[in-house]
Amino acid sequence: MSIAPVIYVIEPFGGSIRRHNANLPLLFADDLGVTRGDGIFEAMRVEGGQAHNMERHLERFRRSAEALDLPLPTPEKWQEATKAALEEWGEAEGKCTWTLTRGRASTSIPTGWVAVEGIDAETLREREKGVKAITMERTWQLPTEFPAKTVNYAATMAALRYATKQGAQDVIYLNGAGLVLEGSRSSVVTTKGRKLRTPAAPGILPGTTQAAIFARAEADGWRCKRKEMNVDYLLGADSVWLVSSTRGPVRVTHLNGQKLPKPANVEEIRELMRSAL
Amino acid sequence: MSIAPVIYVIEPFGGSIRRHNANLPLLFADDLGVTRGDGIFEAMRVEGGQAHNMERHLERFRRSAEALDLPLPTPEKWQEATKAALEEWGEAEGKCTWTLTRGRASTSIPTGWVAVEGIDAETLREREKGVKAITMERTWQLPTEFPAKTVNYAATMAALRYATKQGAQDVIYLNGAGLVLEGSRSSVVTTKGRKLRTPAAPGILPGTTQAAIFARAEADGWRCKRKEMNVDYLLGADSVWLVSSTRGPVRVTHLNGQKLPKPANVEEIRELMRSAL
Repeated sequence: MSIAPVIYVIEPFGGSIRRHNANLPLLFADDLGVTRGDGIFEAMRVEGGQAHNMERHLERFRRSAEALDLPLPTPEKWQEATKAALEEWGEAEGKCTWTLTRGRASTSIPTGWVAVEGIDAETLREREKGVKAITMERTWQLPTEFPAKTVNYAATMAALRYATKQGAQDVIYLNGAGLVLEGSRSSVVTTKGRKLRTPAAPGILPGTTQAAIFARAEADGWRCKRKEMNVDYLLGADSVWLVSSTRGPVRVTHLNGQKLPKPANVEEIRELMRSAL
Repeated sequence: MSIAPVIYVIEPFGGSIRRHNANLPLLFADDLGVTRGDGIFEAMRVEGGQAHNMERHLERFRRSAEALDLPLPTPEKWQEATKAALEEWGEAEGKCTWTLTRGRASTSIPTGWVAVEGIDAETLREREKGVKAITMERTWQLPTEFPAKTVNYAATMAALRYATKQGAQDVIYLNGAGLVLEGSRSSVVTTKGRKLRTPAAPGILPGTTQAAIFARAEADGWRCKRKEMNVDYLLGADSVWLVSSTRGPVRVTHLNGQKLPKPANVEEIRELMRSAL
């Protein structure tokens, strides 16, 4: 997208918000967000001047901050900054990201900002065409008490580069016992008849989009639940989806090189999932 | 330290270096170093206008870049920027950090910089007084082929906060089988008579300081090697040390609340280790 991102900085401890020119640097070299990856984020879809599913993101953001002993975000301030950014951004679809880091080592003042930007071309393509995915054992565990959504994605980015070299576009993580965990930046949802399933296993980041989809689908008469599943379960499902706020529902077309079925009601499912976002 | 850090930015792909005012922001909000923790670093001790052990750090920096598919750092440029920063910094002891991130999502140009700053008061205290440490299972594994030194320290920072709540100052990681791995930001070295040992286990980041200490100690007639060790081995050693470039040798005075012995030759050992840095 050639449209410049809109950035609003949130002064921590409940202070003011201010607009930041995206063409100027924002973070100092000693920000612990970059020197130690000591920060958290949330990303959500925006459209029509609205941030979608904001309550669920606020709640997870708060819990991530809690897990990292960061000052708890003041919801009103983040909502105010998001609103200001969206007024400037307009009606177009986009991605809104909240980031909160421990801030500069030299000042101990946390760094927080809201950024709204366009959806990248790759994401638009994946929504339409789906993705080929490979499974990979995840060699790290998120703390089970609450898996915080930190900015520590270096291993994930390496996994995605590996997937690309294998001709795939995404990775589905398994644990050491072969149980399905989640996508690299998404939750896994499967369909079988009128049933939706998402993996149950320790260390899965609670998916805001998966939760919204389940809530909507249950209202529409689908039966939804968490379930322990392995790769064979994925291969035997009617369809497999990676769902996340900004990518929306993305169908997995191939898993480990094997073509997955495309059910007759694929458009109905896609529409159900989209309507929940 | 109240002395302002000295920062030099390295244009990637072998370009120029430039001084950066540490009181101005450096990183853009879309730098993948902060949004995805997609970056690597090295930290080394400086004194008398020299960066110590630079060759070993350059080598590890190069291998970390390779592991992350980052453009390989041009050694001459990083040396040139380090030299320029040190000329400005002067003779005082300090810490020099090299950081290289994948750069801005919007430009794909990596971000690299050298920063020289003072040694913080906490580190000075630890060098003198030693640290109380606790052991903790590390729930993530570094890739065994080459453990890159990334900026993804959120879990480590959480572990250190946990240690602080237990009245300790540092953490020694164990693997699932109870084998000692390394300190949270250091290598473990033990002494027993004229023998130095460092843990052998998959997924330990090769320690530049440990390597330098072993090279020096062997020249002085100590027998040095890697060895699989558990917590009992640490408790039975003559002394246990956490060694890293900028902290130097820090003796572990207590492990999991148990007081560790302080050998008669503690000053000889400390001097041996210091002289290798």
